[in-house]
Amino acid sequence: MKQPLTNADEPLWGRTLRRIRQIWPIGEHAALKDAVAPELPEANWQRLRDKIDACLEGRGGEVSARARAAELGEAYLVLNAEGRHNFLELLAREYDVDNAAVEATISRRSRSTDDDERRQLNLELRNLLEPPRSKLLRQFNDLEEGVKFLVDLRAELIPWAQGDKTLHALDQDVHRLLASWFDVGFLNLRRITWKTSAALLEKLTESEAVHEIRSWQDLKNRLGEDRRCYAYFHPRMPEEPLIFVEVALINGIAKTIHELLDEKAPMGNPRQADTAIFYSISNCQAGLAGVSFGNFLIKRVAADLSAKLPNLKTFATLSPVPGFLGWLNAHLDELELSEHEQTAIQMLKETGSPKSTFRKLLHNKVSEADSDISNILQPILKRLCARYLLQARRGDKAYDRVAHFHFSNGAQIEQINWAADLSAKGIEQSAGLMVNYLYKLSDIEKNHERYTGQGKITASPTVRKLAKL
Amino acid sequence: MKQPLTNADEPLWGRTLRRIRQIWPIGEHAALKDAVAPELPEANWQRLRDKIDACLEGRGGEVSARARAAELGEAYLVLNAEGRHNFLELLAREYDVDNAAVEATISRRSRSTDDDERRQLNLELRNLLEPPRSKLLRQFNDLEEGVKFLVDLRAELIPWAQGDKTLHALDQDVHRLLASWFDVGFLNLRRITWKTSAALLEKLTESEAVHEIRSWQDLKNRLGEDRRCYAYFHPRMPEEPLIFVEVALINGIAKTIHELLDEKAPMGNPRQADTAIFYSISNCQAGLAGVSFGNFLIKRVAADLSAKLPNLKTFATLSPVPGFLGWLNAHLDELELSEHEQTAIQMLKETGSPKSTFRKLLHNKVSEADSDISNILQPILKRLCARYLLQARRGDKAYDRVAHFHFSNGAQIEQINWAADLSAKGIEQSAGLMVNYLYKLSDIEKNHERYTGQGKITASPTVRKLAKL
Amino acid sequence: MKQPLTNADEPLWGRTLRRIRQIWPIGEHAALKDAVAPELPEANWQRLRDKIDACLEGRGGEVSARARAAELGEAYLVLNAEGRHNFLELLAREYDVDNAAVEATISRRSRSTDDDERRQLNLELRNLLEPPRSKLLRQFNDLEEGVKFLVDLRAELIPWAQGDKTLHALDQDVHRLLASWFDVGFLNLRRITWKTSAALLEKLTESEAVHEIRSWQDLKNRLGEDRRCYAYFHPRMPEEPLIFVEVALINGIAKTIHELLDEKAPMGNPRQADTAIFYSISNCQAGLAGVSFGNFLIKRVAADLSAKLPNLKTFATLSPVPGFLGWLNAHLDELELSEHEQTAIQMLKETGSPKSTFRKLLHNKVSEADSDISNILQPILKRLCARYLLQARRGDKAYDRVAHFHFSNGAQIEQINWAADLSAKGIEQSAGLMVNYLYKLSDIEKNHERYTGQGKITASPTVRKLAKL
Amino acid sequence: MKQPLTNADEPLWGRTLRRIRQIWPIGEHAALKDAVAPELPEANWQRLRDKIDACLEGRGGEVSARARAAELGEAYLVLNAEGRHNFLELLAREYDVDNAAVEATISRRSRSTDDDERRQLNLELRNLLEPPRSKLLRQFNDLEEGVKFLVDLRAELIPWAQGDKTLHALDQDVHRLLASWFDVGFLNLRRITWKTSAALLEKLTESEAVHEIRSWQDLKNRLGEDRRCYAYFHPRMPEEPLIFVEVALINGIAKTIHELLDEKAPMGNPRQADTAIFYSISNCQAGLAGVSFGNFLIKRVAADLSAKLPNLKTFATLSPVPGFLGWLNAHLDELELSEHEQTAIQMLKETGSPKSTFRKLLHNKVSEADSDISNILQPILKRLCARYLLQARRGDKAYDRVAHFHFSNGAQIEQINWAADLSAKGIEQSAGLMVNYLYKLSDIEKNHERYTGQGKITASPTVRKLAKL
Repeated sequence: MKQPLTNADEPLWGRTLRRIRQIWPIGEHAALKDAVAPELPEANWQRLRDKIDACLEGRGGEVSARARAAELGEAYLVLNAEGRHNFLELLAREYDVDNAAVEATISRRSRSTDDDERRQLNLELRNLLEPPRSKLLRQFNDLEEGVKFLVDLRAELIPWAQGDKTLHALDQDVHRLLASWFDVGFLNLRRITWKTSAALLEKLTESEAVHEIRSWQDLKNRLGEDRRCYAYFHPRMPEEPLIFVEVALINGIAKTIHELLDEKAPMGNPRQADTAIFYSISNCQAGLAGVSFGNFLIKRVAADLSAKLPNLKTFATLSPVPGFLGWLNAHLDELELSEHEQTAIQMLKETGSPKSTFRKLLHNKVSEADSDISNILQPILKRLCARYLLQARRGDKAYDRVAHFHFSNGAQIEQINWAADLSAKGIEQSAGLMVNYLYKLSDIEKNHERYTGQGKITASPTVRKLAKL
Repeated sequence: MKQPLTNADEPLWGRTLRRIRQIWPIGEHAALKDAVAPELPEANWQRLRDKIDACLEGRGGEVSARARAAELGEAYLVLNAEGRHNFLELLAREYDVDNAAVEATISRRSRSTDDDERRQLNLELRNLLEPPRSKLLRQFNDLEEGVKFLVDLRAELIPWAQGDKTLHALDQDVHRLLASWFDVGFLNLRRITWKTSAALLEKLTESEAVHEIRSWQDLKNRLGEDRRCYAYFHPRMPEEPLIFVEVALINGIAKTIHELLDEKAPMGNPRQADTAIFYSISNCQAGLAGVSFGNFLIKRVAADLSAKLPNLKTFATLSPVPGFLGWLNAHLDELELSEHEQTAIQMLKETGSPKSTFRKLLHNKVSEADSDISNILQPILKRLCARYLLQARRGDKAYDRVAHFHFSNGAQIEQINWAADLSAKGIEQSAGLMVNYLYKLSDIEKNHERYTGQGKITASPTVRKLAKL
Repeated sequence: MKQPLTNADEPLWGRTLRRIRQIWPIGEHAALKDAVAPELPEANWQRLRDKIDACLEGRGGEVSARARAAELGEAYLVLNAEGRHNFLELLAREYDVDNAAVEATISRRSRSTDDDERRQLNLELRNLLEPPRSKLLRQFNDLEEGVKFLVDLRAELIPWAQGDKTLHALDQDVHRLLASWFDVGFLNLRRITWKTSAALLEKLTESEAVHEIRSWQDLKNRLGEDRRCYAYFHPRMPEEPLIFVEVALINGIAKTIHELLDEKAPMGNPRQADTAIFYSISNCQAGLAGVSFGNFLIKRVAADLSAKLPNLKTFATLSPVPGFLGWLNAHLDELELSEHEQTAIQMLKETGSPKSTFRKLLHNKVSEADSDISNILQPILKRLCARYLLQARRGDKAYDRVAHFHFSNGAQIEQINWAADLSAKGIEQSAGLMVNYLYKLSDIEKNHERYTGQGKITASPTVRKLAKL
Repeated sequence: MKQPLTNADEPLWGRTLRRIRQIWPIGEHAALKDAVAPELPEANWQRLRDKIDACLEGRGGEVSARARAAELGEAYLVLNAEGRHNFLELLAREYDVDNAAVEATISRRSRSTDDDERRQLNLELRNLLEPPRSKLLRQFNDLEEGVKFLVDLRAELIPWAQGDKTLHALDQDVHRLLASWFDVGFLNLRRITWKTSAALLEKLTESEAVHEIRSWQDLKNRLGEDRRCYAYFHPRMPEEPLIFVEVALINGIAKTIHELLDEKAPMGNPRQADTAIFYSISNCQAGLAGVSFGNFLIKRVAADLSAKLPNLKTFATLSPVPGFLGWLNAHLDELELSEHEQTAIQMLKETGSPKSTFRKLLHNKVSEADSDISNILQPILKRLCARYLLQARRGDKAYDRVAHFHFSNGAQIEQINWAADLSAKGIEQSAGLMVNYLYKLSDIEKNHERYTGQGKITASPTVRKLAKL
């Protein structure tokens, strides 16, 4: 029912583009949007091909071609899901690399004996290996929100591309283009505060993937004076956060998420804090999957905080262990357990599936802090978690994706915390445990090289000892 | 003597980057700037290779690699010209495409019979054909002014690459990267007025390549209420115009540049103007040679003006004919001339070389408006100029580069004007003639296709008749 | 518990001022904040007097005096309510007009026979009649948030000044100063949207006095594309709205508030709307009581809307009638009622107090749209309301304060709506009735003059007829 | 010939106001601008009186009254000088204080015995003593550039008011209003750099009253990295500097203006500078004469510099001595001179008038650094200058207006410099001498009190000794 309306404050280029299309008429193609059915049946494909060809040939000059591509993009926007799928199919199938041309050039190259000629042929080959559709993808940049358009197109494409090799190849083209457009050097790092636009804060709230933002009051608490929130933005998507991180400025390393999210806790003085805890990092654009800037975000925020608040000495995370219980369930039989542990696990099994048991036990634990069962479970689960983090692998990488992310960044495991996230998700994924990864400035590079080069994980003596016990 | 100083208002990313390098120490490499001699003798190359390798391998993680690349960039900045040449040589020679790897992949591809595998090999081949140095070029983006850095690097590289095939290949890489970064969809179109920063206006003044800006008063006149000036900017170079155009809003098509540059002429009312004359368009960044946005600039400015000032009906240029007299001198003997023309040209030759003669004659013409010689010369030169514009070619293109630019954009020749630019340059290049190219909205696409497809030039009946006479 | 912290983005003047106090030391007075007790007992007054005297004399130069006044202001801020009351008492009692000096000047004036001398004495007299404390009030402007400081001081002073003539005189001084500082010519009119800062939107929510904003979702609905919200701001209080108005852009005049606040209603297209309904106007600063800009706000917003949305033809309000039932209760006996009305009212009385009866009846009305009682009550209450609006007075003014506001602005009564506001407040104050006041552009001045000059109210024929029945 | 045009970027309030006048028609008065002759003969005055009366009565409501006042202001703008003079005469003569009403209230006051009544009468009296025209002056604030309008009106009024007591009284009203509007607490302090708008820099250039800015190159030099320039702005005149100061950041106290204005001098590093020299301070708005912010400007800039560049230890001026030679000429006979001095002065007199002699001698001095005459003159003139600064008075104040300004601010004389300003003006006013006034933070208040309280001037021992010799 909502009608999108012209924004009076739209940027010059937007207005200009629309106007261009009015005053530089681009002929018979203009009404494409009305000429194709929403589900884009094959009967309509020829119309599309004509238009795409006109774009790729630059018919009528590059300005016209871009305006025409923008029209194609607008036509895409009014298609339904089936129509979009068909559109992408067409692009993927008919505008792929021309293998005959590639082979002809390879054959010329193989006969060439001249260095310069070969260099020239390399260049030609490289151009031929870029599918023609890539040019159209770039031309979409002239849509009013062209960059966002392509990001959203990919968000829809990714699930379709799973198991469909043709669409997967198209997705690789889009990914390659977005990776170049979203080079971290082009991004702006901005601090988010309670003074930020409500529309933008609403987007953060919807994107928060680690610890759900429950209300505007919760959000306000996370933007208080003893907190920091930073996000990356692309200059062409100034209202769209790409990724954001939430930081608490406190004294000493935080052990539970609850103390950080407590809206009634007194406001601390950030100038007196000695520790910055990164407790949540979330991507906001599904279409940028595989384009990574999380590592830049953490380190740049740490650098910025350290410059502004020289009192800060420690940079660490308070992170979930999302794969722990899933892995434990799957590998329980393979684990070498002490007799004591076996008894405990058995006990859990008898009271039901580990998941529900943990949950009940942990909830009990909260009410009766010194419950016997908690006393038994705590050391066992922390030890299992330590072993999981240090030993469980997928190929060379740590099995846990959060752990892998921080190890790749050069962080080390500092501490495993009991009853640290008692939310439903926290208990179901990691038995309520959370981990502090420490970013120790002098060791970052060394840790990174050990991990990426030799697959070795750095951990504090306590955690190492825990895993060995 | 000038020491570059920290700007207190520098953007967040800049300060952050510098800080990153302080707090995420990148080890033994840090002092590169001091470790290499300004002229970068080969004895220093190994040091560079180590650093470049570290960047390309992403040693210590991508954040460290970028910081290291930024250091390389800073080291480059303190080299002298010889040192920079050596640096670029190293990049060009040692970080080129790995032909052995390319051939191995080609060979695997030739043996493959599976479509999916071949698609995968195409991708690998494409990646192998991108020289490794391209990655370093992209990493320079993390320098404080990384985009400008690369633009300036290329401005220096272009002359060195002429006649040096190795450096030329490097230049092609830089060009390809800049063409992607400066996609017109990323650029901001901004109006320049007398309220614009003096620093930016100073840059325009230095870049004006068509009609020199003689003083701040001259500049102010060109930014008056009956004028418009627009420039394109890259979001990462907000203080650096890329290209700008100067427009006069008047009634009827301007016939001479002098009426437009007259500082004493009364101010017109832009809301009552019916004609926009584009009288100057200049590139500001030598390093962006071959990355073209002039066609976009003209059409977007026309669109913007037309939206804001609905009274405007005619969009035309007042353009120089820079190649005319050079071509005339070279081709005089081949031209089919009437007896009358032969006598006139003969007369010119007798009084000396055509150049100096024209100059003298034209200067006379100004003082004695009805001088006999002017009466004789005017029709002859205008006819020769019409023939030059319509018939002289370089391959398929119009010989005159300004004419070629406007024909490619879909403009048509409207009028040739006598005594239109009596500056030294104007007389020496084009005997004081100037041309109006008309941008007739309804014909733009058709004209463009005729010219680029069939090499046909569109001209007004008057000019066509002139050329035939 | 919250500690106010230095904002890194604070404006230059703020940082500068604080720094001034650091580097231009202002001697023994500096520690005033620590030297007085929070409740400011009379034993502390002498310290204050010394400081105030130093400010008024401009001791150490005007810059120092201002810095000292700022310190006084800061000392004021840390006092408790009793302390502030004492501070204001001191100002009110001891820094009032010097009547002896006034009388001396009056006496010199009475003896003077020279026009020029008398003009000079007038000036002196005028200066003497401005109490010395006014200078200090102005000097507070150098506090970091000096304007807001004075506004908040007055918000606290107003209730204390009721019934205390000394404090009332002080309040008059503060009011006079604020009226000059908040001259409408200095204010900025800004549109509020969902893109506005959350902090600012939160302030609007807290200030909305007519129809409570129930949630962020409710607020978002009020800022949709078919709504407009505008607020006035002072340049020195850019984050503090002074007054705001909410407008709905619809077709035809709205009859109930419920249709406007319905979050599920479809979004309309503002470019097609023919009517702007001003449905809420609220002041945000208690300290600006008596400084009026509501009339400016309505007319400027109407002008701005009319410029941007030329389709709009009708500007009207949907307003509460806050005084209706209170007045009815008090004046029931004096009203001349028809037999029919007497029976109805009697019926109401028998079922309980009018208030609770109305409420019950109206609630019934909603569920049983054609209930007999509603059929009986509707015409009676609308007629009584029409009589109330047209006839009930406080002196020359309409008795109802909302009605008076709109009549003063030149609006006329257009329509009285049944079941228009069924909130608890709506029913208790006005039996659920709401009124449309029409701002008919061509009649505004005439209506204003009729009302302010002759006390005459303009109403539509329907309403006039209703009142007469 | 220049037609002022609507600025597309004008602020909301401006557009709105104009629109208000379109849609809230204010009747027969609208065409005032066309109804009065440019010289405003008395025959036209009645038309004006009607309009002014409508404004003062608030006819049609306050919004209409303001719109009407804005029209009056626009009518004023199209009058010629004679017309404006007549307009101001009318305001001054006919809208002055109503003395009869004043006397009636005085008489009621004298009969009153009640404190509260007397307080009320004081208030009434105060209101009566404010001339009615003041209200109109305030209403002009609704003109598009209302504040600037009043500033410019006063710039024209000031010379007319000299010797005309009626206009002088009007000027006092305008001054009082502007002093309140331009309270320093409302002003914004902004740094001016080479990145500032050319239009604004052009205004600075035109206003520089101490050391003429000779070219854009000279200006650029004064805005280099080792310089600072700050100006005050009013929020309603954001493009109009009110006053600005130029500062050089150097090592050691500057002795001549030439070293500071030398465009070829190497750029210093401001972070290493230990001294800030304030070498020029100029007012930009003639209409703000008598509204002083120079003292605030110097001290706030010093505070800001000191916060940003902690290396700065000394804040001093390099100032002209504009009254020196004028005073010397006038008082030569009264001075007690040593025999040696008498001979020297005599020698000067014989070679012509002191002025031309000094000039010649000083110019000689430059070419022959050790010329005998220079050797003779230097100590004599410096001594006379020291005596002038320390002893010459106008009433309680220092005779030299620059000296008085700095003494009032709490500065002290540090040093008198020979051959410090060899421009024509420098030689003619002060024999090329310049003075350093030192702002010693710890002594500012004490010095100010000594000077304003007891008329005592603080000087360095060197200068004191010089004066005594």
